[in-house]
Parts: sequence; C-alpha cells; structure tokens
Amino acid sequence: MRKKPVLALITGGTFDKEYNLITGELFFKDTHLPEMFQLGRCTLDITVRTLMMIDSLQMTDDDRRLVVQNCSRCEFDHILITHGTDTMVQTAEMIAQANLNKTIVLVGAMIPYKFGMSSDGFFNLGSALAYTQVLPAGVYIAMHGEYFHWDNVRKNRKTGYFEPINPDL
Amino acid sequence: MRKKPVLALITGGTFDKEYNLITGELFFKDTHLPEMFQLGRCTLDITVRTLMMIDSLQMTDDDRRLVVQNCSRCEFDHILITHGTDTMVQTAEMIAQANLNKTIVLVGAMIPYKFGMSSDGFFNLGSALAYTQVLPAGVYIAMHGEYFHWDNVRKNRKTGYFEPINPDL
Amino acid sequence: MRKKPVLALITGGTFDKEYNLITGELFFKDTHLPEMFQLGRCTLDITVRTLMMIDSLQMTDDDRRLVVQNCSRCEFDHILITHGTDTMVQTAEMIAQANLNKTIVLVGAMIPYKFGMSSDGFFNLGSALAYTQVLPAGVYIAMHGEYFHWDNVRKNRKTGYFEPINPDL
Amino acid sequence: MRKKPVLALITGGTFDKEYNLITGELFFKDTHLPEMFQLGRCTLDITVRTLMMIDSLQMTDDDRRLVVQNCSRCEFDHILITHGTDTMVQTAEMIAQANLNKTIVLVGAMIPYKFGMSSDGFFNLGSALAYTQVLPAGVYIAMHGEYFHWDNVRKNRKTGYFEPINPDL
Repeated sequence: MRKKPVLALITGGTFDKEYNLITGELFFKDTHLPEMFQLGRCTLDITVRTLMMIDSLQMTDDDRRLVVQNCSRCEFDHILITHGTDTMVQTAEMIAQANLNKTIVLVGAMIPYKFGMSSDGFFNLGSALAYTQVLPAGVYIAMHGEYFHWDNVRKNRKTGYFEPINPDL
Repeated sequence: MRKKPVLALITGGTFDKEYNLITGELFFKDTHLPEMFQLGRCTLDITVRTLMMIDSLQMTDDDRRLVVQNCSRCEFDHILITHGTDTMVQTAEMIAQANLNKTIVLVGAMIPYKFGMSSDGFFNLGSALAYTQVLPAGVYIAMHGEYFHWDNVRKNRKTGYFEPINPDL
Repeated sequence: MRKKPVLALITGGTFDKEYNLITGELFFKDTHLPEMFQLGRCTLDITVRTLMMIDSLQMTDDDRRLVVQNCSRCEFDHILITHGTDTMVQTAEMIAQANLNKTIVLVGAMIPYKFGMSSDGFFNLGSALAYTQVLPAGVYIAMHGEYFHWDNVRKNRKTGYFEPINPDL
Repeated sequence: MRKKPVLALITGGTFDKEYNLITGELFFKDTHLPEMFQLGRCTLDITVRTLMMIDSLQMTDDDRRLVVQNCSRCEFDHILITHGTDTMVQTAEMIAQANLNKTIVLVGAMIPYKFGMSSDGFFNLGSALAYTQVLPAGVYIAMHGEYFHWDNVRKNRKTGYFEPINPDL
C-alpha cells in the first residue's frame, strides 16, 4: 500500500495563531491545517483532529497526557503533531516514554501561517509531512527543513533555532 | 555526521516563473530558492547551482544530459532538482538510467512561488528537502507532499496532479 | 449626507485575472472586488455590478457602449470602473463624450490581485475609491496613486506607466 | 503644475509593526512606506521622513508637538502622516489647532503591513495618498477607504472602526 494514512493532531502553537485587530494581541480561532494541505494540493489520506488550541507555554502535563493517549489509542502508525515551539521537546519526551511503535513527528512555526509569505509554517508542514511518511518508528521534531531525534534537540531561545544537543550524533 | 550536505540544482519551471507586467507573460529572472530556504529558516548545508532557467517543455536531451552530468560528477550524495512539471518524469528517467548511487529528488510547483500564498511551491520545497535527506538512494519525484518512484509516476495533464501508474506498488 | 453611494462596475482586466495551473495561462473567474473591499474594512455604501470579464484588448465598441449605458442610466453620481489598462483611455474617452454630470474613475492593475503582495491592485483600488468620492464631476483614470484627466493621459507601453500627454496641464 | 509634492511623515503605529519571532511580540524596525510606494508603482514626488517609530498609546504631547512642528515648518502643502489608530484623533486635533493652511491626512492600519494579504495597510495608504492630493486645506483621517474631518470622528474601540461622531454632517 503506497499511501500511508496520516493522523494530524492539532495542539495550537504559533503555527495557528491569528492577530486580533481590536486588542493587538495574538489569539487562536480554528486550525489552518486543512487549508494548508489544500494549497499544498495534498491528496494523501490525512485525518485532522484538534485536541486543543493553546500556546505551548500554557500546556500542562494533563494536556500532554491527552496528546500521548491520542497517539497510542488511534489506529494510525504515522502521526504529525502541530505544537508550540517553546515546550515541543517536553511533549516529544513524554510521547517517547510511551514506547509506541509509530512514526511521530512534531512540527511548529516561528511565525504564524496567517502572517503571509514571511511565515515558515507552510515550508515546515511540507517537510514534517514528508518525515512522517518515511522516517522509521520513533519520535522526532521537524523544524527548518530538518528533523531531530526527540532526545538530541533543544530550542535555542536566543536565536529561535532548534539545534542538536550533541551535533556529532 | 548528522547534517548531510545537499546540492540543489535549478532548471527553472513554474517554480521560478515571474509575471512580466509589460507583456502579461511569464518569464524567468533569478531563482527564488535561496530566499525560500532563508524564509524556511534553513541552516542545512545546501549548495545552490543554476543549470538553466527554462520551461520544461523547452528542455532538450542536451539539457537533460547536463542535468545528469551535474548529478554524477558532483561530490554530493543528496541532490534536489527544481524542474518544470511537464517533462519532470522524462528527466527523472534519464537520471535513473545513469545508475548513480545517490538520493535524487525532483520537485516542481503548479503555481509560481512569486504568486504569493496561493503557490504550492514553498510546501513542495519543504517536503522535497526532507525526502532528499532521508530516502534511500534512488530517483524520486516529490509533489503534493508525496514522493513517487521515477518509474511509477505520471503527470495527469487534465487534473494537474501527479499520480502513480500502478497504485498498488 | 456624508457617505455618497458608489457604483463599482467590473469589466475584467489584469486586476481580476487568475492563473490557470493546468494551462499556465491567465483567465477570469469572478471579480475579487467584494473581497478586497472587505479586507480594506470598507463600510461605504458600494454596489458592485459585473458587466463583463474580459481583457481590455478584446473590448469592442459594443462592450464600451454597455459601460457608457450603465454609467448614464444608473442613479449613482459616483462611479468606479475596473478596466484592463491597455484600452482604458479609449473607454474613458467614450464615457466622456456622453457628457454625464458624474464623477467616474477608471482603475486597473499591472499585476493581478491574486498574485499576492507583488500586486498594485489593492493600493490602486484604495486610491480610486478615494478619487471617486471627492473629485468633481468628470472622467478620470486612477493609477499609481495618481489621477489623470481622461483627455490628458496615455499608457506608455514600454514602461507600463500611465503618464500625462501634456505634463504642464 | 500637475504633480503636487507630498510629505509623508512616519510616526509608527500598527502600520509598520513587525513580529519578533523570538519574543512573540510586535516591534518596530524601519518603515515600510518606501517599499509600499514602490509596489504601488508610485512616481509622485513623495518625501518620506521618519519622526518616530512608536505605538500611538505611547505618544506624548511632546511627540505630538514634534509632529505639528514638522507640518508647520516644512515647505509642503500636502502632508500624509502614518499614525497608530488609538490616539490618531488626538494628534489630528493638535495639528488642527495650529491652523495651518495645508491638506494634512492621517492614516493608519488595523493589521500590520508585514502580515501580508490580510492587512488593510496597502489599501489605506492608496486612499490616503489620493485624499492628500485632492482634499481642500484641512486636517483629516483616512481609514477604510473613507475620509473623516478631524472634529467629527472617533475610533470605536469595540468594533475597531472609525465612525463620525455626528453622521448627519
């Protein structure tokens, strides 16, 4: 079977943030993933499920457990998760501890998709979808066109880039 | 070594077309790939080489031989090629016949990158870059977030979608 | 009465052209004006009427007469007309000959609105809508943030800019 | 002389805000007006002067006096001012009290120009530039494709729309 069904779990993050023109603040409405897959002319078998729409700094351990449950209890072997970048590594770690025999890729954006051509979101989604389909079972983070193993990555808060903890691995 | 050096070969195609506001026609100036990698916040080791800037309907066998030569004579094992979609499969076939032991991914766009948020180019580039890094040696086409083996894909000219010749493979 | 009702007549032109990803050619579907007025957060009393959706090089004298009739027989004193730039001046001339005591502003774009941030269409529409509301009765062309009297303007086909025939007037 | 020289004074506001991808907050770098005039293919004689780059809620009376001085002491009779929307009316009032015999138009945006096609900034700039050229001497606010007299306008903070205090005037 060539096309592997993919589950896309939505948790919010910068990816899906929008600008509130009354307050001047960022907020969440609906996920833009279905629109993005359509613009990408994707005909893969993708199921989109919105678990929560939050900033990852607000994500609690209960929230993370919900993510893990959705990964373990579903019938999918290929799972893409949109996530705020600030605590993406923590969530990846908790998923990894569940020892699921699945390919699970977390992806985020540094600039909201709705901010137009300046956003990295559309590019990141394309690479994450590719990694979700072809990487062996494991938990990964896909950012900047790269993938990182969950246990060898950190977000550099000064530069805004994800980087390997040990670059030689 | 975690980060594999990638060679990006530019041949033109819809990807890099621009709108000439005097004639109302599409034309080529420079490739947008370096700008796109920057917006994607890519820090991978990518070398961009422009071989030609043409519509793939104009591509001759000499042009294709130039592409094959650049694939075979370079030191890179991971090669991404931007290409017009109309004859992408032909070029993939000629590269495959060279029997190079490298991962080579051809990618295109149905709408020029310069046409803004409606273009599929940025998404396709993200997925192609991922496939270039992780697929085993072989020649592939990356479109719509998917990858296709060079010998099991055709462009459906009615729908504008790439599809497998034999969907069961 | 502060807000003057405005009639927006649509004739097509580069303004409303879209990219056909199957043929690689430009074509017309629906006008983008209602969407553009909404993005501009316009609450003015604007009525949009699509007369035709054509390239202005294809516009016949019958087509132009239809435009003149719609200007003369309507109840509006402030009329904005979207029009291809190539024969905009001819249409303006025929409207002027009808000696209507109304403010009529023709506006176009050099790059289709759908081509994103590179298009001049949204800017031109903003200025044309302003001129339609405040210029005295007469027939004008609004391009590049400027307005031109119908009898002192030509399109420079080499540069793609509208310019006065006599710059001292 | 057909083309009237225009002075564009920059004070900041949502218009010119950018997204800081490290902090997730909005900030100011340089003004986007020259780029916007270029995309609008403007060849008018426009001089751009950046007075300050601030949120209008931070604007002090000293800041406003600087704006008034720049309006009064310059040689221009047609002045466009970019300004945050929150205190735009206050600044307009202080300029009006200076009784300058000039056409002065304040303009803002509800969504930053850098946020792409969702921004109203490019449209507002087009209409403001038109009003600056053709309205009689006075102080005006240009928003949503409309113009308002400085003494008959308020920003409705609930809806985010500017509206006349007395709609019958």
